[in-house]
Amino acid sequence: MSNKADPQANQQASQQSIAEHAVAALYQRDRASQQLGMRVTECRPGFARVVMKITGDMVNGHQVCHGGLVFTLADSAFAFACNSHDRSTVAASATIEFLGPARAGDELTAVASERWRSRRSGIYEIEVTNQRGETIALFRGRSHEVGGPVVT
Amino acid sequence: MSNKADPQANQQASQQSIAEHAVAALYQRDRASQQLGMRVTECRPGFARVVMKITGDMVNGHQVCHGGLVFTLADSAFAFACNSHDRSTVAASATIEFLGPARAGDELTAVASERWRSRRSGIYEIEVTNQRGETIALFRGRSHEVGGPVVT
Amino acid sequence: MSNKADPQANQQASQQSIAEHAVAALYQRDRASQQLGMRVTECRPGFARVVMKITGDMVNGHQVCHGGLVFTLADSAFAFACNSHDRSTVAASATIEFLGPARAGDELTAVASERWRSRRSGIYEIEVTNQRGETIALFRGRSHEVGGPVVT
Amino acid sequence: MSNKADPQANQQASQQSIAEHAVAALYQRDRASQQLGMRVTECRPGFARVVMKITGDMVNGHQVCHGGLVFTLADSAFAFACNSHDRSTVAASATIEFLGPARAGDELTAVASERWRSRRSGIYEIEVTNQRGETIALFRGRSHEVGGPVVT
Repeated sequence: MSNKADPQANQQASQQSIAEHAVAALYQRDRASQQLGMRVTECRPGFARVVMKITGDMVNGHQVCHGGLVFTLADSAFAFACNSHDRSTVAASATIEFLGPARAGDELTAVASERWRSRRSGIYEIEVTNQRGETIALFRGRSHEVGGPVVT
Repeated sequence: MSNKADPQANQQASQQSIAEHAVAALYQRDRASQQLGMRVTECRPGFARVVMKITGDMVNGHQVCHGGLVFTLADSAFAFACNSHDRSTVAASATIEFLGPARAGDELTAVASERWRSRRSGIYEIEVTNQRGETIALFRGRSHEVGGPVVT
Repeated sequence: MSNKADPQANQQASQQSIAEHAVAALYQRDRASQQLGMRVTECRPGFARVVMKITGDMVNGHQVCHGGLVFTLADSAFAFACNSHDRSTVAASATIEFLGPARAGDELTAVASERWRSRRSGIYEIEVTNQRGETIALFRGRSHEVGGPVVT
Repeated sequence: MSNKADPQANQQASQQSIAEHAVAALYQRDRASQQLGMRVTECRPGFARVVMKITGDMVNGHQVCHGGLVFTLADSAFAFACNSHDRSTVAASATIEFLGPARAGDELTAVASERWRSRRSGIYEIEVTNQRGETIALFRGRSHEVGGPVVT
């Protein structure tokens, strides 16, 4: 909605619209996140919240959620946050701290926030919590912009 | 097979047998690695090689293999290597460097090697390569022994 | 100062006193931080702020502050924060992202915050900024409690 | 020395000469590494070995070598290895695993090896050992080439 009286509000609305379109376009092509049942429940410029239910097919040999799938949830939230500026951006590196187990039936939420961004790189922090608000993992990722828009 | 003349060879054979039983038991319970089509093609004490074919369901919004699934392959190899001593062991933390894209149809191989081990902790390095021998990712994990055997 | 009417305020004051004594004791024995001219300007339970001036002896071959000394500043802040509960605690691992150069004459500030803590482990995040408020580095550390008090 | 009969040997000799000049030039400007008493005892393209004696001024509040100075030694070895191609290169990020304490009087050796290199980035692994060959720390760094030669 245009607002002649407040150019800053207009710019924010425009950036929010860019973020929503970029994240929607990325999600639509992201068969891995879809197959794992992830849903993007919120996005803003530099921010994304993604939810995933842990199924019986996601447990590892210790009968808890495979750490790789906890990472994958965080990595998807990272991807949506760092592509929210509609510039094609990939992960260069990531670190994860596993703080507690997730189990089949749990619903995990990953919240990704932009911590720093330069012309080509960015740092994002992602926290993964369960339905009781307990922290399951902390993830930090470094992004690298490869150029070109996300929305084609 | 017992060998009265060579106690060192006997001990090595015994540790190899322990590794094979522990990895087989862990894999049999690991529905996530099975669902993703991973196969353990080699294991030794402190070592594992795991292979995974990238399917169309594993691509992300940039049309390359989701980085989380590359991580998951490395993490499984890490798990098999650090549980090969038949002591229940989980990941405490991990770092990954993404060095090149993997695509649908590629076959990835993760090789996990024990770099250091103390009473309760260990450091493992995992390299992920594709079918042309190109390095896709480098992963380093810190393990934490939680106690109890893997084989029940 | 005792406050019969407010036991929660009493407990907070007591924890603050413990933090101040533990950090003071640790700093007094920490010849490395002293030699590098670091000063602890604030401490609370799970929190520390440390300041260091970059001297000409701290520059590397590219004529900017040696990344190792930026790390050392962050690592000292991490140490003061994770020992603030008066339980002897050391670093198990750390990751650092170098985001911008520091130069001779700059004054750097490292702020360490406790992000998560269990019985024996903790995760701390440290941000290093310069005198203009620009972020120089982001550091994340995992602590390991070795037992025994800091104050002897 | 020129060798008309073996162009490959000539190229190797030339790269070795470039490495030695680049590392010498970098070390000469690196006041931090000099002040800490580091010596480069070997360098090759993508490789460096650096030695440092732990003095009483390097201990922290737990009376062991400050982890930041162990990191600094590894980081210097990383810098010499990644600048050995005579292209100005800086650290983008690093992770370190602290595996055992170093004490005043110990002599530490950091060996840096190039693990992977692309046009602008590289991954280097550094192992720090003491005079008894015990591993003190494992470090992995990501380099970023900023352009221009090291030798001016």
